Amino acid sequence: MKPCIITLITDFGTADTYAGVMKGVILSINAIAKVVDITHEIAPQDVWGACFALHTAYPWFPKKTVHLVVVDPGVGSERRPLVIETENYFFIGPDNGVFTAVLAGQGKKSVYKITDSAFLLPEVSATFHGRDVFAPVAAHLAKGIPPSRMGTAVTDYVLLDWPQPMAGKAGTAEGQILHIDRFGNLITNFSRPYVRALTGGSDFYVRCAGKSIKQVVPSYAYAKPGHLCSVFGSSDFLEIAVANGSAARVLKAKRGQKVRIFYQKNK
Amino acid sequence: MKPCIITLITDFGTADTYAGVMKGVILSINAIAKVVDITHEIAPQDVWGACFALHTAYPWFPKKTVHLVVVDPGVGSERRPLVIETENYFFIGPDNGVFTAVLAGQGKKSVYKITDSAFLLPEVSATFHGRDVFAPVAAHLAKGIPPSRMGTAVTDYVLLDWPQPMAGKAGTAEGQILHIDRFGNLITNFSRPYVRALTGGSDFYVRCAGKSIKQVVPSYAYAKPGHLCSVFGSSDFLEIAVANGSAARVLKAKRGQKVRIFYQKNK
Amino acid sequence: MKPCIITLITDFGTADTYAGVMKGVILSINAIAKVVDITHEIAPQDVWGACFALHTAYPWFPKKTVHLVVVDPGVGSERRPLVIETENYFFIGPDNGVFTAVLAGQGKKSVYKITDSAFLLPEVSATFHGRDVFAPVAAHLAKGIPPSRMGTAVTDYVLLDWPQPMAGKAGTAEGQILHIDRFGNLITNFSRPYVRALTGGSDFYVRCAGKSIKQVVPSYAYAKPGHLCSVFGSSDFLEIAVANGSAARVLKAKRGQKVRIFYQKNK
Repeated sequence: MKPCIITLITDFGTADTYAGVMKGVILSINAIAKVVDITHEIAPQDVWGACFALHTAYPWFPKKTVHLVVVDPGVGSERRPLVIETENYFFIGPDNGVFTAVLAGQGKKSVYKITDSAFLLPEVSATFHGRDVFAPVAAHLAKGIPPSRMGTAVTDYVLLDWPQPMAGKAGTAEGQILHIDRFGNLITNFSRPYVRALTGGSDFYVRCAGKSIKQVVPSYAYAKPGHLCSVFGSSDFLEIAVANGSAARVLKAKRGQKVRIFYQKNK
Repeated sequence: MKPCIITLITDFGTADTYAGVMKGVILSINAIAKVVDITHEIAPQDVWGACFALHTAYPWFPKKTVHLVVVDPGVGSERRPLVIETENYFFIGPDNGVFTAVLAGQGKKSVYKITDSAFLLPEVSATFHGRDVFAPVAAHLAKGIPPSRMGTAVTDYVLLDWPQPMAGKAGTAEGQILHIDRFGNLITNFSRPYVRALTGGSDFYVRCAGKSIKQVVPSYAYAKPGHLCSVFGSSDFLEIAVANGSAARVLKAKRGQKVRIFYQKNK
Repeated sequence: MKPCIITLITDFGTADTYAGVMKGVILSINAIAKVVDITHEIAPQDVWGACFALHTAYPWFPKKTVHLVVVDPGVGSERRPLVIETENYFFIGPDNGVFTAVLAGQGKKSVYKITDSAFLLPEVSATFHGRDVFAPVAAHLAKGIPPSRMGTAVTDYVLLDWPQPMAGKAGTAEGQILHIDRFGNLITNFSRPYVRALTGGSDFYVRCAGKSIKQVVPSYAYAKPGHLCSVFGSSDFLEIAVANGSAARVLKAKRGQKVRIFYQKNK
């Protein structure tokens, strides 16, 4: 058996030892697991941020990877711990919507509420299920224990509203900023297929924060440094960017802020 | 032999290459070592911070794990490099009190000053013993070299004062904040067993920074969002928290700040 | 075959999933690769910063390590993707000067422009060659594919100007700050051999930001806490430091700032 990969997405940061402790627990149960940090810098309690991070990252990992997500403001309450099996991956974390991108997508999936305490640490605290519930379950999954043995199937799991762009009056559509990255790129919910269907391939421009952004470029390097442009980014969403600069700073933009597309109708 | 784990706690941050260089040195000596970052975000020269981080993390790792701690303001001076063997673990780092939680605890331990240069890099700089002394020693330990071969036993190692809570006049006790985590939770030195023995199970409340915190909850999710509460956290210390908020921000609290417990005497 | 090491230096930060996605791509192609983060905290688009980081880190890794550097403001443009083979290492990244320390140094090296799409992901985006070009090439290299099979040799690669210190009028030399580390140490381009040759072993002192720094110490612990000193650091460059403090803060110094040495001529 080749070593199985367990990825981590949390809001624990890297200054405290919470993420390290989870790795210790995983390796205590499964010495050959390969733990890969995706990010621990989700803002505290930001379930949507974790959901989006997972969405952008999980499909790039090998089949059978176990994706562990711990952004868990409801820890210790009645919120359920879940394990999910899809055709290619396993997912573990709290039932708070963090798996929306996985659960709302196509394809067969089985969702279980974790109930069998044999796969948890002997003592389960009320405040750190990352350590006491999710890490041990991930380690056991990565050993090949099927999720069906860990709990009971559920179908009423929590889903977040994934914001969809909306076509407005002729020649316009309204979307929003889903995520702002380290470079200050504003990643919108206008996917490339959506924009292609909407505009029929016509030219379009973007408005955000009171500014018109006329230049649509294939990559940042084609834009004039310091000027706003838009580009279909690496997750195939339209981004607003400033080459060698920060669109977030220039536009003082925030996540959730409205973005509009204007295009030539009936070209 | 299964791959041996070496954990890292340092104040090197992750923007510089110091931690990466230590990993390169470890893997050059021991290709199958599994290096696990616990944290590199200890504040510069914060020996107590590293001591507390180690305390919270080390017991969650598999037996035989080598825990490497490099927070070392005395590098290049006469301060001694130590290797410690306990029943379950090895520890390596400077003799500056960073291992207080390990050395002051129960159980047999052997402490050695590292003297045999065969286990160091051929050239030892005056400013980076993490690279030249501690990383190579960790790599050799993880290969199974016994610490007794690396140096001479010492018993006069440095210990920090670990702050203990003190019972005051009837119905009160005074403790302090040991650590503030990413969520703004204030982790005090009131352990659950201490509080149980103190109060005999009576109700209690907490005062800190001029505020009374009446609500003691099993987990953050039971507190009213935005309100102060106290909770026994994942290391079994009493924490002051704000659900979906930051107690550190609300109370403008600092590490070392006094915290008091008030309880019903002779219930 | 022992697992091959792939190191990462990027400007992706650790809050976004870009670095994690690269790891997923690498492990999808090469399940036994050992990915080691050197740093993801290079400032956005800071090619020089990545060049210096690589310089300080790469020689400490085992032979055959693959060093992957993705600081790539020209992504999607005509800038070429490179793979470099030296006596001991492989290097992969954009042809923008980031490999100056490797390419300008001694020793045989072969440099190839990556042209064979068999070693890339099936679809190559315009904005994320770290994922679509460099990570897959690294994974294939770490499997033992020779770089000569991946592209065509080039000799006109980009080199940055590496700033050299200059001897001025008798008894002085002018250098500059190459890097400021987490501790606020100012790492200059005065190497220990340069200073030895310059001064002939005479005493010297340093001036920077209008202050004279008289004390030259073997390590920080020998300086008076809070006072400026200079020290030959772990990369053998002269550093300006404040023991238990930050020289960067005290001097309000910036990268590129001038630093002068004054020494006794003809001692």
